Amino acid sequence: MAIDDGKQSPKKFAVVLFRGFQALDAFGPLDILNMLSSYYAPLELYVLADMLDPVPTNAHAEGGYTMSQSVIPTHTFESAPRDIEVLLVPGGFGTRDLGNIQPAVNFVRSAFPRLRYLLTVCTGSALVAMSGVLDGRRATSNKKAFAWVTSQGPNVQWVQEARWVTDGNVWTASGISAGIDMAYAFVSEMYGEDIAQELADRAEYTRQKDPSVDPFAKFAKM
Amino acid sequence: MAIDDGKQSPKKFAVVLFRGFQALDAFGPLDILNMLSSYYAPLELYVLADMLDPVPTNAHAEGGYTMSQSVIPTHTFESAPRDIEVLLVPGGFGTRDLGNIQPAVNFVRSAFPRLRYLLTVCTGSALVAMSGVLDGRRATSNKKAFAWVTSQGPNVQWVQEARWVTDGNVWTASGISAGIDMAYAFVSEMYGEDIAQELADRAEYTRQKDPSVDPFAKFAKM
Repeated sequence: MAIDDGKQSPKKFAVVLFRGFQALDAFGPLDILNMLSSYYAPLELYVLADMLDPVPTNAHAEGGYTMSQSVIPTHTFESAPRDIEVLLVPGGFGTRDLGNIQPAVNFVRSAFPRLRYLLTVCTGSALVAMSGVLDGRRATSNKKAFAWVTSQGPNVQWVQEARWVTDGNVWTASGISAGIDMAYAFVSEMYGEDIAQELADRAEYTRQKDPSVDPFAKFAKM
Repeated sequence: MAIDDGKQSPKKFAVVLFRGFQALDAFGPLDILNMLSSYYAPLELYVLADMLDPVPTNAHAEGGYTMSQSVIPTHTFESAPRDIEVLLVPGGFGTRDLGNIQPAVNFVRSAFPRLRYLLTVCTGSALVAMSGVLDGRRATSNKKAFAWVTSQGPNVQWVQEARWVTDGNVWTASGISAGIDMAYAFVSEMYGEDIAQELADRAEYTRQKDPSVDPFAKFAKM
């Protein structure tokens, strides 16, 4: 198997981190890209945050050894390279504190016109909605958080029943694990279905390939 | 819902990191524990590695911005607290380099007698097999890597067809994403099935609850 270079598949990725990001929102898709990069197509990743300090998954970790993991940024939002092709925005408890995510919201707003693709997972779509770039677009989010998320983007066409939604160059996944299915679909479209399936087989992951199948839509309160 | 304290559910977890660990092997289970800790039962996590330097998912990252993410340890293997109840060992490309993982192998061997539970994901069972603690036990691993893994533990009773295997206090998951199903099963057994299912609903994850169902066993070469 080989990458179809005629597609000019993206090579430069970035992920937006903030205190209290949801680990699996980021590492579900990133694990797939890590494998894609190791086996088929060398990729680059910029890890972005407000500051270069380690970014914890638990925004409220205080003293002792809270259940939290910290990831190292490679750049701040200010020093981020301008050649990012694909930007991944996770959600998480940290999105509920506007002060915490305002720098990320501002970065998404300013970077969006230069991106080829913007991907969000879970309440990452709330963060991106706050930037205004989802206005007039179809998008989805975590169903247990749907009432709050939709209130953050009154001009967004929120889709309640969807594993993930694509609108132009914006891909939004539903809650947490939905980012994994969306990431395989993204890899399939960008690099080829045979490569996406080979990576899923290596990860022993049974994909949901139909973005309209959503057993969790019933949890949404508008 | 509340934790059934009669079970004396574990509160102190640790994860073993090494250069080239598989991100989802660690963050699949940890994301579930992060949510468990946030919603129901405050837990502690020690992040262990050979040194306190950030640990990259890509063991061969050199120059530029390779597709890699780096996580900060809280302790070295030498300074690790002795009250760890549950130890999680991920796999990854880094397990193929014995020099790279020897400190982790030695740590598992010395810590095992003090643990309540040892959990591995993917080729994490190869690392643990090298320590000898799987000798005579039933265990499984990633099916695409099965020939190599089983050669690392000739005295282990390797199970080819299993999503995960429990033998006493040792839980071993098959490849990468299987760690997620095993982690929900572990949470179910330790903290209650209602809590495990509530966490899966929040993560919008469709669980495989039967450890014997393994559509990926066909990829194993002994």
